[in-house]
Amino acid sequence: MIKLVALYRKPADAPAFDKHYNEIHTPLVKKYPDLRKLEITRVTGAPIGEAKFYLMAEMYWDDKPTMDKALASPEGRAVAKDLVSFAADIVTIFHGEV
Amino acid sequence: MIKLVALYRKPADAPAFDKHYNEIHTPLVKKYPDLRKLEITRVTGAPIGEAKFYLMAEMYWDDKPTMDKALASPEGRAVAKDLVSFAADIVTIFHGEV
Repeated sequence: MIKLVALYRKPADAPAFDKHYNEIHTPLVKKYPDLRKLEITRVTGAPIGEAKFYLMAEMYWDDKPTMDKALASPEGRAVAKDLVSFAADIVTIFHGEV
Repeated sequence: MIKLVALYRKPADAPAFDKHYNEIHTPLVKKYPDLRKLEITRVTGAPIGEAKFYLMAEMYWDDKPTMDKALASPEGRAVAKDLVSFAADIVTIFHGEV
């Protein structure tokens, strides 16, 4: 499988971020075509020092062509547009083979 | 559940890193007491720009006390010791609730 990972650093206004993330962004993410799984991790700390991140979302598809198609779809473009609107400066995105 | 995430940036010598990771480190990780799941992701790229990371390992336990116990066990200390020996400068670690 392939997964897309979105890693968010600490937002300046965490309650506002959480509200947008839960009420607006996640419902958009769930509309990705052919999405197999969505796993959201709320970062709670680090074994040594302080955690650099606040939240991680992982989205799974069967293979890269299916993911690419989902990202390029109208639903995928809506996710990207929303992401830029509230988290452009704190998010890092990559994909990889599981 | 709780998971521990180890994110590796690109190693200077990728084949040497892969060899150590696969042959030495992963067998040690699999010995963590009460580990429920290990998911390894080989980073293949990013939707925009270049991926910042090379590899991600995610280790799952039932709850934080069980994870803490595993990290403090002899097997957990062996993982930490090995990690420092080959990836201290490229790894970022955090944990979070799934």
